[in-house]
Amino acid sequence: MKKIFIIGCGLLGSSLVRIIAKKKLAKKIFVYEKSKKNIIKIKKLRLPVIIVKSLKDGVLNSDLIIFCTPMSEYKKLILRINKFILPKTIITDIGSTKMKSSKIIKKFLKEGTNWVQSHPIAGSEVSGPEHGKDDMFNNKWCVLIKDKKTNLKHLKSLISFWKKIGSKTVIMNSEKHDRIFSITSHLPHLIAYNLVKSAKDYEKKMKLDLIKYSAGGLRDFSRIAASNEIMWRDIFFDNSQNISKAIDIFVKNLKEFKKDINLKKNKSIINKLINAKKVRSKIIKLKQDINKPDFGRSN
Amino acid sequence: MKKIFIIGCGLLGSSLVRIIAKKKLAKKIFVYEKSKKNIIKIKKLRLPVIIVKSLKDGVLNSDLIIFCTPMSEYKKLILRINKFILPKTIITDIGSTKMKSSKIIKKFLKEGTNWVQSHPIAGSEVSGPEHGKDDMFNNKWCVLIKDKKTNLKHLKSLISFWKKIGSKTVIMNSEKHDRIFSITSHLPHLIAYNLVKSAKDYEKKMKLDLIKYSAGGLRDFSRIAASNEIMWRDIFFDNSQNISKAIDIFVKNLKEFKKDINLKKNKSIINKLINAKKVRSKIIKLKQDINKPDFGRSN
Repeated sequence: MKKIFIIGCGLLGSSLVRIIAKKKLAKKIFVYEKSKKNIIKIKKLRLPVIIVKSLKDGVLNSDLIIFCTPMSEYKKLILRINKFILPKTIITDIGSTKMKSSKIIKKFLKEGTNWVQSHPIAGSEVSGPEHGKDDMFNNKWCVLIKDKKTNLKHLKSLISFWKKIGSKTVIMNSEKHDRIFSITSHLPHLIAYNLVKSAKDYEKKMKLDLIKYSAGGLRDFSRIAASNEIMWRDIFFDNSQNISKAIDIFVKNLKEFKKDINLKKNKSIINKLINAKKVRSKIIKLKQDINKPDFGRSN
Repeated sequence: MKKIFIIGCGLLGSSLVRIIAKKKLAKKIFVYEKSKKNIIKIKKLRLPVIIVKSLKDGVLNSDLIIFCTPMSEYKKLILRINKFILPKTIITDIGSTKMKSSKIIKKFLKEGTNWVQSHPIAGSEVSGPEHGKDDMFNNKWCVLIKDKKTNLKHLKSLISFWKKIGSKTVIMNSEKHDRIFSITSHLPHLIAYNLVKSAKDYEKKMKLDLIKYSAGGLRDFSRIAASNEIMWRDIFFDNSQNISKAIDIFVKNLKEFKKDINLKKNKSIINKLINAKKVRSKIIKLKQDINKPDFGRSN
């Protein structure tokens, strides 16, 4: 890749900029960013990028385009770049759901051009270029989507690109991707948002000042529930079918759990709790989390 | 306090030992521990304690007794110490629910003796004396329970004790305590256990290998769901009424959430997500969590 064009330079876009620059993976990095606030931040941070005012300048000058915007922006942006995009240019994105966005891409992207979707499993509850980190993708999974019409040459290039970024790559189709992440990511976020809302509702209803006692568990959920609302609205809407199924499984289990605690079913509860603990060990073993009590948190 | 007796020297008991010794809050620390494994660990760690083989030796020699065992052990232990306990001895515990345990205490503790309940809001997903830390209670809330019959002199002594330990103290009755923590701690734990179980169920049903993609959210829940199963079984059983009410609020909100994402109700979802984010800011402001993205976690 000689020149890379990052569209949307928030948390993940700016992290890509940092690692691409650090590892010298491109001669030039172009950035398009619609938020004036973010542009000021990017300049202040002295990120080694060329900020382009028009999409055209970025598209015409780049070998690789990476969409790092909320997924709800894709359609509008595609319609704007169609005029300039060339078949040799590799396009990808880092969006968190794939079935809906792949439909948008198929429907609106100019024929003869290619977009191979990526999903690096990385992020944080904070947003904006000031929070980007050059190790954001390091040893993290990056899912690459292979469907019937995927350009295999571009797919290969992207695999090589993400490996250079530091990610572990895995290929799957968009259906499988959306099913897996409905459970490992989308449901947990929805549950976290819902728990925080329920705590607020309870506080109001019972007239209890309870948020100040969050250290016993609620605080962990509040971190996830502080994630970017535009990004997560898009995910919830785009993957609503899979998420709905996941909610149904969750509610069914929750009702059984409630019954078990009310009937004091010792064996059933102990089994549930022990089995859940085993998953934690597996997650640590798979290097999906830090192996320190309380995440090594110092508060 | 000249001599302190810790019954049960796991994560929190051993943390108390460490801070009491560090701050020289007692001349002697007696420990009773029924697990042989833990006794070996305590010796290996060279914790500055006198391990007593009989409860009698600890009870007769101490000014303050702190129960740090699972709550389901209280009744049995009370019946065993009743013979030796003197009215001047202050007894407390660190259990996470209070209504049920206060009933056990009232029913079984010898008349004329006093037990003022404490609940330090501290802990971790790991168990055992090897994980104790001398800063475990530092700047954490410690709730002290004041009911009709509470001995105010003992209560005052305990407030002073917990402050020396480094905690912030707050007084409330057991009903209020159990309502507050049903939402801020017990429901989050139950939800975490339930989410991990649901992920396992989904993995099995869909024949998908998904735990390895936990970094996108599930891993956080898995940490909480790795907590000690005996301790949490006791909490779920003892506070089942309040937790059931909390589950009902949670499920009602979850069904609305599901409806909103299926009907693509933009405004309603965005409001939910923004309001949840505000709670995070409040939690940080109240110093209930570390003010670093992703808890400052390095993986």
